[in-house]
Amino acid sequence: MKLWELAGAEDDRLFSPYCWRVRMALAHKGLAAESVPWRFTEKSVIAATGQGAVPVLEDGTNLLHDSWTIAQHLEKTRPGQPLFAGASGQSLAFFFKHWVERTVHLPMLKVVIVDIHRHLHASDQAYFRASREKRFGQTLEAVAGDTKAAVAALSAALDPLRPVIVQHPFVSGATPGFADYVLFSAFQWARVVSPTRLLEPDDPLFGWRERMLDLFDGL
Amino acid sequence: MKLWELAGAEDDRLFSPYCWRVRMALAHKGLAAESVPWRFTEKSVIAATGQGAVPVLEDGTNLLHDSWTIAQHLEKTRPGQPLFAGASGQSLAFFFKHWVERTVHLPMLKVVIVDIHRHLHASDQAYFRASREKRFGQTLEAVAGDTKAAVAALSAALDPLRPVIVQHPFVSGATPGFADYVLFSAFQWARVVSPTRLLEPDDPLFGWRERMLDLFDGL
Repeated sequence: MKLWELAGAEDDRLFSPYCWRVRMALAHKGLAAESVPWRFTEKSVIAATGQGAVPVLEDGTNLLHDSWTIAQHLEKTRPGQPLFAGASGQSLAFFFKHWVERTVHLPMLKVVIVDIHRHLHASDQAYFRASREKRFGQTLEAVAGDTKAAVAALSAALDPLRPVIVQHPFVSGATPGFADYVLFSAFQWARVVSPTRLLEPDDPLFGWRERMLDLFDGL
Repeated sequence: MKLWELAGAEDDRLFSPYCWRVRMALAHKGLAAESVPWRFTEKSVIAATGQGAVPVLEDGTNLLHDSWTIAQHLEKTRPGQPLFAGASGQSLAFFFKHWVERTVHLPMLKVVIVDIHRHLHASDQAYFRASREKRFGQTLEAVAGDTKAAVAALSAALDPLRPVIVQHPFVSGATPGFADYVLFSAFQWARVVSPTRLLEPDDPLFGWRERMLDLFDGL
């Protein structure tokens, strides 16, 4: 298998939350894939997928994109070490993914957006600034705003998760599942580029993130 | 089994979202329980549970309270027709319950709070007004505020659910599970006391609520 993953200036600065989901899902299933660093401006490299974003996974004759599609493909073709608790668990994890994207990603983006720009390959910096400033109708610096406020908003957004993590080691219960990888990947987005402290040690989610970081020999 | 359920002036005006969860869970498992109407001021009737709220379920020698505890008890003692997709699905459903309580219940309460007061037994009305006005530091009418704004806030809060319901008939996938009952019970809270229209027919959640209303011969 071959996995195209978004990289910064250095090949191993892998910051995309969507790519981290696939990286974790592969490790969960004990699968290896050759990692190919990819930059925002290398659209032609993945043109065969009919769209312009990674992760892209080549698995034999299958060329797949979109982290959710890839996770479903892995679950179907390698059912051992399940990522989901059956079809019903998959539906709830799909809700969880949408919840993370709508409530956790925005405050996280505010924390990381300026740092991402700083860590990009020179060829990507102008593209990133122009496309994001067009999307938000603001400069990157204005989107970022006050980091302290973004960290507080992130903490508030995570509130419905705390009672779960007080009772279970993982969002998915006794062992991690795809829902955990979706949330963890949002934290990796920040960890890889930003020094900002996101969780306090007395937060139940601090311990959860430590457990996630320890998985797969600290992948 | 015997189930104490919160009732309005009429015995069959059962509006508590927490009681509805248990009512639906029992039906899901094909179990019957004698329903006992209970009012806010009848604390002595359920004093043996060591707290003052319903649902309370008597199941043989077990006297249980709290809708989540009761659902877990039913799942453990009658594993047929599961409410949860195993331990992992239960953990995700626990997150879903907290998400509903923190994001859906408040706008729903604003829609229903004045109507609930109107439908209460005379003996409960003063208690309800005093306890809620103390909790919120506002009159019931001020908590309710602008109904149109509350309906809009409710619709926005439900946003992460729509992509799920576009792909699956139920939150829990192909068939309903406890997560569906938690959300449906919040809608029943309104349906039983309020004429306010909460969902438009072109909303995917409108169809979901119709499917929920049709369950168990339109219980």
